[in-house]
Amino acid sequence: MKFKLTLLFLFCISAIASAQNTDSLMLRKIYDEALVNGQCYQNLHYLCKNIGQRLSGSANAQKAVDWSKKLMETYGFDRVFLQPVMVTHWERGEKEVGKIINGKTEIPVAIAALGGSVATPKGGLSANIIEVRSLAELKDLGERVIKGKIVFFNRPFDPRFIETGSAYGTAGDQRFAGPAAAAKFGAVGVIVRSLTEALDNYPHTGTTQYDEGGIKIPAAAISTMAANKLSNMLRLKKLPLIKFYFKQSCQSMPDAPSFNVVGEIKGSENPGRFIIVGGHLDSWDLAEGAHDDGTGVMQSVEVLRILKAVGYHPKNSIRAVLYMDEESGGKGGAEYARLAKQNNEDHIAAIETDEGGFTPRGFSFVDASPAFLKGVNQSWKKLFEPYESDRLVAGGGGSDIEHLKDTQPSVKLIGFRPDSQRYFDIHHTPNDVFENVNKRELELGSASMASLIYLIDQYGLNFK
Amino acid sequence: MKFKLTLLFLFCISAIASAQNTDSLMLRKIYDEALVNGQCYQNLHYLCKNIGQRLSGSANAQKAVDWSKKLMETYGFDRVFLQPVMVTHWERGEKEVGKIINGKTEIPVAIAALGGSVATPKGGLSANIIEVRSLAELKDLGERVIKGKIVFFNRPFDPRFIETGSAYGTAGDQRFAGPAAAAKFGAVGVIVRSLTEALDNYPHTGTTQYDEGGIKIPAAAISTMAANKLSNMLRLKKLPLIKFYFKQSCQSMPDAPSFNVVGEIKGSENPGRFIIVGGHLDSWDLAEGAHDDGTGVMQSVEVLRILKAVGYHPKNSIRAVLYMDEESGGKGGAEYARLAKQNNEDHIAAIETDEGGFTPRGFSFVDASPAFLKGVNQSWKKLFEPYESDRLVAGGGGSDIEHLKDTQPSVKLIGFRPDSQRYFDIHHTPNDVFENVNKRELELGSASMASLIYLIDQYGLNFK
Repeated sequence: MKFKLTLLFLFCISAIASAQNTDSLMLRKIYDEALVNGQCYQNLHYLCKNIGQRLSGSANAQKAVDWSKKLMETYGFDRVFLQPVMVTHWERGEKEVGKIINGKTEIPVAIAALGGSVATPKGGLSANIIEVRSLAELKDLGERVIKGKIVFFNRPFDPRFIETGSAYGTAGDQRFAGPAAAAKFGAVGVIVRSLTEALDNYPHTGTTQYDEGGIKIPAAAISTMAANKLSNMLRLKKLPLIKFYFKQSCQSMPDAPSFNVVGEIKGSENPGRFIIVGGHLDSWDLAEGAHDDGTGVMQSVEVLRILKAVGYHPKNSIRAVLYMDEESGGKGGAEYARLAKQNNEDHIAAIETDEGGFTPRGFSFVDASPAFLKGVNQSWKKLFEPYESDRLVAGGGGSDIEHLKDTQPSVKLIGFRPDSQRYFDIHHTPNDVFENVNKRELELGSASMASLIYLIDQYGLNFK
Repeated sequence: MKFKLTLLFLFCISAIASAQNTDSLMLRKIYDEALVNGQCYQNLHYLCKNIGQRLSGSANAQKAVDWSKKLMETYGFDRVFLQPVMVTHWERGEKEVGKIINGKTEIPVAIAALGGSVATPKGGLSANIIEVRSLAELKDLGERVIKGKIVFFNRPFDPRFIETGSAYGTAGDQRFAGPAAAAKFGAVGVIVRSLTEALDNYPHTGTTQYDEGGIKIPAAAISTMAANKLSNMLRLKKLPLIKFYFKQSCQSMPDAPSFNVVGEIKGSENPGRFIIVGGHLDSWDLAEGAHDDGTGVMQSVEVLRILKAVGYHPKNSIRAVLYMDEESGGKGGAEYARLAKQNNEDHIAAIETDEGGFTPRGFSFVDASPAFLKGVNQSWKKLFEPYESDRLVAGGGGSDIEHLKDTQPSVKLIGFRPDSQRYFDIHHTPNDVFENVNKRELELGSASMASLIYLIDQYGLNFK
């Protein structure tokens, strides 16, 4: 694209002149503060590069707690405090080894233990391998075929979904529930195709969940390239010739003491009523947890910084909540909800930002009725349109805030919705690093959430 | 983000079940074809890695012409042809050298000659430097201050614009018109801050335009990091101590023979009426021209491939036009328009894709009246909503198609509008490479343009 002077110039003038009333002026102030004086990106840089991975229960997670508390204190929020919580503590141990064994040939492949998985025997585990596409197929094959084998779940992402979260949703049962299901039929281990559409050599980790009291078999994610190679080999060769070998030394430890970190700006009219925005401070251990969820926690802190910087005095109390243990067990989110009830805190709305720090598209409202959606769109869509963050739709909130529904029946749960196309390329991989975050995309997200909080604080969410 | 089974699953089912009528079914088919069988990404890989940079008038540009013609022939389009055109031919020559000279200290800085610039003297050019922020400031200083100096245009991007194209629009006069203006006041050279908000060490090239018959002085872009360094040094030191040195051996050659490449699917009812989609096949020479505009030309070819693959037989003829010489002089676009008039081709609409291969947000319609916008939104917005590409707004089209306005008064010019946040990080730099293009983002763009063409072909654009 080359330079086109006239048209663009005219366009700019009209874009800047669009602020028409108090609300639109306040949104413009919020966006200007985020884009001109934003500190979110440099804070994320510190979190990623000076602290790095923050696996729940780890020493690094504690460093992140200490630093983010200090950060919010330097911003002079009215109150910054920790909520003690016992969290999941699982350790990966030594780097995993995975190999396809084809007779005398051994082909190394990229794998990563699933979070919560047990270890293999010390010398590793080798067995015949059976490829399945679904839990239903596993059940059809049954114990006769599965027993003694390593089950290879290889259903790819469905590329037809426009939002990649939906592809994750329909492929994810393989990782989440596959190992427990395979164990029931006598499998000795599980390999799961990485949950991504990207064709590359990164394994994508993530939790798996064993049945309470059930047999636990070791489970690992395998990169999509390696999964394709393995699948092709299985198709070409007779099954008994191909074996799979993997070795991992991960283990679950007793729950460990940790904290949610909370910053607060006190409400001038209703200090006991809360609007909160948050993400999770823990991350997977393979990289820096940049998009998952460094961006979310740094955006949440930034939302409060922005509101303070533009001189906004909220009627209700506003909180940034940095939850611990989202990836491994969700105990931070549960504890926040428990304490909210115990302390008689009345929550108006909870926003979660945990889908990456990409260009914002809008917000999704949990259990939104058609009347609610109509109301919120009629009232606020126009205000968000100049910022291209105006998709106000029904949808999910997030796993940290969903616990609030149990203790705060009237709370409105809201998901921040950034562009989803790149998220699962880097999600839970060694590639989730600061360099893959764009400064402006991150800042626009903070501004959109600060704007929504301003509007909720002013007008509430009683759209009927 | 961890796995949230139930909500996402429900969401997926409702997303897939949304196709309700012929048009929405056709859009769904188009998107499925793009996302499941897309060839755009692999074609772009070939263009970037096997051909590479395609500067107008270069041997590589000719390779791109030959290959893209063959590509469209293998797809079996009804007609694939070349339009000969004499194009701008400028060569960069040896890698440029730039230095800040502070007394006896020389600090090397990253620069790149502006397209169309003349060379410095063979041994380079050294002079005192004067920093200005605008053409107005240059004029205020006048010949008394400017004469004999190198002018350093250093007005940064305004980060407050939501669409980065607007920031480019308001900063771009420095590069485009700055050197000609400085020459009038006796400057001996010009350095322009790279047109980006990103703070990095890449110089961003791009054309500058001298006045017809005016004095031509050498001009180069300097990276934003180097620009900041230079500006800080100028502020701290007394002006005469700081000099700037640069050396470049670029030159303008006589216009060279080249081609636009056109692929066509014949219309079944009105073969002489055309809907066209295109981008530019030439690129800057510093990298691979991936987003600028490899994505645009490969998307344009893909649009025709998709329409053919889904079995759509258009009423009107559909063309993919790969223009030559957009970056350097725009002669390909002008020639396409001239030939359209000469051949009595009636153009209904022309879409240009030249703002990068990012997630599509919608389309901008040139000279769109409020009534037109209302009509197009009422008719088609709902169809694009499931694909999140439903921003149908007034705005620019693109510099290649604008020539059509002169020869085809009734043509509707339309700009493809992808997310703009990352474009100017890589625009015209050594970093505009294939690796910075996301497969799904690219494919969604092709699908959105194929969908718009289907709708225009079916219903026209007579929104009054």
